[in-house]
Formats: sequence, structure tokens, C-alpha cells
Amino acid sequence: MSSSTSRVVDIHTHMYPPSYIQILESRSQIPLVRKFSQAPDPRLILLEAEVKALEDATHNPEAKPPGRPLTSHYASLAQKLHFMDTHRIDISVISLANPWLDFLSPSESGAIAQSVNEEFSRMCSDHPGRLFFFGTLPLTAALETVLASIEHLRILRYCRGVILGTSGLGKGLDDPDLLPIFEALATTGLTVFLHPHYGLPNDVWGPRASAEYGHVLPLALGFPMETTIAVARMYLAGVFDKVPELRMILAHSGGTLPFLAGRIESCIMHDGQLLREGKLNKGRRTVWEVLREQVYLDAVIYSEVGLKAAVQASGADRLMFGTDHPFFPPLSTDEQGEWESVSLNAEAVALAVGQDTGDFKNVMGMNAVKILRLDTES
Amino acid sequence: MSSSTSRVVDIHTHMYPPSYIQILESRSQIPLVRKFSQAPDPRLILLEAEVKALEDATHNPEAKPPGRPLTSHYASLAQKLHFMDTHRIDISVISLANPWLDFLSPSESGAIAQSVNEEFSRMCSDHPGRLFFFGTLPLTAALETVLASIEHLRILRYCRGVILGTSGLGKGLDDPDLLPIFEALATTGLTVFLHPHYGLPNDVWGPRASAEYGHVLPLALGFPMETTIAVARMYLAGVFDKVPELRMILAHSGGTLPFLAGRIESCIMHDGQLLREGKLNKGRRTVWEVLREQVYLDAVIYSEVGLKAAVQASGADRLMFGTDHPFFPPLSTDEQGEWESVSLNAEAVALAVGQDTGDFKNVMGMNAVKILRLDTES
Repeated sequence: MSSSTSRVVDIHTHMYPPSYIQILESRSQIPLVRKFSQAPDPRLILLEAEVKALEDATHNPEAKPPGRPLTSHYASLAQKLHFMDTHRIDISVISLANPWLDFLSPSESGAIAQSVNEEFSRMCSDHPGRLFFFGTLPLTAALETVLASIEHLRILRYCRGVILGTSGLGKGLDDPDLLPIFEALATTGLTVFLHPHYGLPNDVWGPRASAEYGHVLPLALGFPMETTIAVARMYLAGVFDKVPELRMILAHSGGTLPFLAGRIESCIMHDGQLLREGKLNKGRRTVWEVLREQVYLDAVIYSEVGLKAAVQASGADRLMFGTDHPFFPPLSTDEQGEWESVSLNAEAVALAVGQDTGDFKNVMGMNAVKILRLDTES
Repeated sequence: MSSSTSRVVDIHTHMYPPSYIQILESRSQIPLVRKFSQAPDPRLILLEAEVKALEDATHNPEAKPPGRPLTSHYASLAQKLHFMDTHRIDISVISLANPWLDFLSPSESGAIAQSVNEEFSRMCSDHPGRLFFFGTLPLTAALETVLASIEHLRILRYCRGVILGTSGLGKGLDDPDLLPIFEALATTGLTVFLHPHYGLPNDVWGPRASAEYGHVLPLALGFPMETTIAVARMYLAGVFDKVPELRMILAHSGGTLPFLAGRIESCIMHDGQLLREGKLNKGRRTVWEVLREQVYLDAVIYSEVGLKAAVQASGADRLMFGTDHPFFPPLSTDEQGEWESVSLNAEAVALAVGQDTGDFKNVMGMNAVKILRLDTES
């Protein structure tokens, strides 16, 4: 994908550094890593939707293994670089994968955040120009610890933002107590990469899902719906107006935000309670304005249809290619070769904006170079 | 919008006939209709998300009124016709609004379905050529009662399908016990209009939603997400393959299905469990194929971005204009005049397919004439 005049950048690519894997191995509740006799690799079990399969496999050695295999792709930097070379990716902006530090106790999260962020920083320093990273915040700790963590990230040379889940301090991203954190991130020039993890409550998938449909519903629908709900709650709470310098990359092309923005606007416009209470009526920036001014979208949506909607909603200058590596490895071909999950998204970009166009180069990398300042190592 | 050579058709337009309103007035749990001293009109309270406001208003005469005003738009046929005239709608395919008969006891639902369907039939007979309808099934009754209801709808002259919620027989639309019902509908040539009602569990909206954000989140996000989940569950259960003649209109341009179809396909393709168990791998029709062959979409998505994605996913020949009347009345202008919720969708059609094009006429009405056989009165 690379050429002499442009660079391909992967802004959605995760790692669990070895120290983080150790934490997961020590746990008895999700998220956790555990070995099962029925599978060769240890299993990584992350999702609420996987709890039943975890219980089954714990009590029954014949049951299918829960979660997904924890291969070397999750923790090995050599593997990440090999993956980048295989897919002609020049630069990766790596981030800790979900659920980050959301499950840590308040007393331990500050120190672990510091150690994880330094580990990411070292990986980048060891491969200057090829790797940058999004840091991780110790959101279960006290506010001052979170703010100190932001200050720490500010001085880490290859840090370009923070990856953030949707739980915030436990009450969602529309929680007013998060405002000082959003303000500190905006002031520091750290872009927020909003990423789902919690999905939707299990029962929305119905009684057949866990036995019959694999991970499809929670991953295909739960993740993007979670992102959409989180950003809509932020919007309705006025966060984008209150912190105008906040910049946020939404995972998976905004969840479903480009498709539903019109319905959100219409529902606001037709809401009697919001009208009576004088909320959101005067001078509010519309969802469309937020999409075009404060939000960036990754290009991880696996279709021309979705990507065109993303381009039309936010602009081709705000869309950035990503792979979601190490998730969605190929099942029928060698994991060391090309991944179909990657080519699907690259092809969607070509179909949506045209191959060999300026927009193609921009979405595939040059937007990220500009937006995340990847042409400078400070 | 009308012209001598084409007709404008509204396929998404609801009514609560007077007998149905009486049922709602007799109830103490949602859905219900109740008078409150703090509001001039009786209030229509439908959603789980409105239960807290209902309790507040029941105990506190100062609290804001719950739900929405039950105006004459909900039950008056004269009002429906006036609305059609105002918006130059030639034909409306009316349907009972949510939650239909989902809450009735098994013993009463068969007779009430028959009476409601006959009431809709009479309304259409009184205005031949202007009104058709989607019937309602007594899904809480025994299977034979449901099948008898389908047989009854078959002989009602102006019936063109059934409106269906997502609960099915209580276990969702991927329930194998529903297959005989889908088969009977397909055999009878009755199109299913899939419509949301239940949304998502309240807690996904967070602690601030009910006090701060009006109805925005459950209506703007909960409804389309519910539809998407329901149809994805049907897809994964193989319903579209098992009942190849089933035809289904998805409300609100498919919820989010056009935007997420690529992610659903990718998650299926990358699911280890589905691969191991040999599910969905050989000869399955893709989500895209179902969108282009068995699914129709209404054009109720309030944006050019969303509508273009819908057109690209299903084809301009499968998209049908709708208004969602009597929901989303204008708040600041006369309810007897033009509704902005209608013009937003008509403008989106013009922007998405071009004004004065064949596609425009087709989406605004002629697709519905053809798909739902509205040029014949039998």
C-alpha cells in the first residue's frame, strides 16, 4: 500500500504488553487469561457475553473453549512489526486493547498506568518513526492521579492521545466529573480514541445467541452500538460544546453515528421535554457539526456502503485507516500472511473514495500523519 | 408531491383506532393512556423508558407529564386524511402503532386482533384507493389462532401485510416456533413490516438520561438498534434461507443494518465457533443478498447520508417513503400544517436520489404501488 510520496498508517491496532497479560493471568473474573485442556493456546476471555462459555468450560472439559486464543499476535512486538510489513503499513499508532485498566482497584491503577504507558513508550522508542501510541488512563483512581497520568503522557515522546472506553469513571462519558479530564486532554493536545468494550446487556441477544451465533452479535452490533450511545450521551450532555478543543476518534467509523445522526437531530428537534426546558435549542452545535469539527472516524467498517456514509458525514479529510489487529485473524489461511479483515477495509476505502486518488492516500495514512503529527518525533 | 403520472405513498403511518385507545385507557401498566392534571390532553405512555416519569407524575402533581399527548392525530381518520392532503400523499398504508397486541392475554388477543383488523379494513373501504393497511397478529395466542388471523387477513381486501414487533412469541424473531407463521405469511403474500417498540434496556442510557435527555436516546438509538438486532438474529438463525419467499420491510431504513452489514459479514467470516461448527459457511446467502432480495427499507432516516447508504445497500427500487405519522409532530408550528419530520425525509430522498428523477418518484410512491400492489383493490 505504501509509495514513495505517501505513508500507510494504522491507527486502530492493539497490544497487550507482557506485564498486562500477567495481570489477566492472575484474575478469576473477566477479563482474564486461562489455559484449558481442550485448546492449545491460552484463552483470552473479555466479554460479558463469554461468561457462560467460561463457566461451561471450567466445569466440563468437553465443552468448547471460551473466548479466543491468545496468540503471539497479542503481546509480541516482533509479530506486530511482521504484521505491519506484511500489509505494507509504514506507521502504527498502537494502543492497549480493551478493557484497558477499567477493572483495576483505585489504589493500583495509577502505578500500573504509568508502567503500561512507559512500556508502550519504550516499544515506540525502539522503532523510531514506525510506532507511536495512544496511552491509557487510570480512570478508577482519584482525579489527581488521572491528571498526573495525562501530564506523564504529555512528556512521552511518541504518545499522541489516549484510548478511552465508554465507562468513564463508572457512570459513562456524560458524567460531569469527567469534564476536567476532557479539558486536560484537550489542553494537552491529546486526541481521545473512543473504543467500545462493554457492548450491550446480554439479554438483548436472546436465548439462542451464546450457543448458536458465536461472537457475532456482541462484536458486530454490540460494539458499534455501545460507541454510538456513548458519544450521543456526550453530545446531549453538551460535552463537545463545553470542551470545544476536545478531539475524538470514534472506533469502527463512529459505531453507527453517521447513519443515525439525522434521526438523532430529528428526535432532538421534536422532543417536547427538551423544548419546554429550553435545553439544546439555542446555538447548540448540531451532531453534524460535531462530526465535521471535533470527531474523526477510523475506516474500520468493512464495506463501501458504511465507508461512504462515514466520508459523507465527517469528510474524507477526517477518516483514518485501521486494522483492529490482533483481532479478527484469518481462520482458513496462515496468520503470518495477509489478513482478509485488513484487505476488506483497504478495499472499502478504494471503493468509497477511488483508488489512486488523493483521498485514498489521505485516508490510508496522510490524514493520520497530519492529524496526529506523525512526521515529528516529539 | 403528487403528479398526474405518479403517486406519493406513505407506507409508515400509524393509527390507534378508538377501540384500541379504550383498551389502553383501561390499563394500569404500560402501555396505557391516562389523564394527568398537569396536561391538557390525555397522555400516551408506551416505553419502558417512560415508566419513571409515569411514577413521578402519579405521585406528584407538580411533576412533568409522562409520555406524549394523545392528540386527535392518533385515532381520527379525518385527521389522517387531512394530514395526507396537507402533505400531498395520495395513498397511505396504515398500521396499528406499537406495541400492537403484544401485551394482551392469550385468551383475548385472537378476538381483539380480528376486531382491530376489521376496523382497519372498514377505514380503507370507506376511502377506496386512498387507504390500504398492514394487519396485526395476535401473537400471544395459540399458533392456530395466529394462523387463522393470517387467513382472515388474506380475505380482507385492502390488507397488504402485517406489522410485526421484535418480540415474536416472547423469545424474539429467531425463535423456531415462529417459522410456521413466517411461512404462512410468505405463502399468503403478506409482506411483514418489522417495527421496533422495546428499544434497549434502560440502563444503557445511563443515570442522567431520563431526567436530562427527553425521549432522544430511546427513540433515536434504541428503536433502530432494536430493529437491527432483531433482523440480525433472524439472519443468523437462517430464517431468510428457510423461508425464501418471506418479504420484510424494515422500519427506519433498516435501523442501522445498511451501515453495519459489512461488519456483520466480517464478524461471521472471522468467527471461530461458527467455522468449527460448520454453521453459515456453505451456500449461505450473505446479509447483502438478503438486503437486495428479501428486504425492503422505508425512507424514514432523516438524512441524505443515511438514505444514500440505504439506497446503496438495498437499491433505489426497494426503498419506500414514509412519515411515521402521528409521531414526531411539529412543536413550534401548527399541527394542522406541514410537518418538518415529513419534509426532512422527503428532502433526504431528493438529495439522495435527485429531485425529478425516476428514482425519486419510485421512492416517493411508485415502488410501494408495485411492491404492495396498490393499483388493485383486491
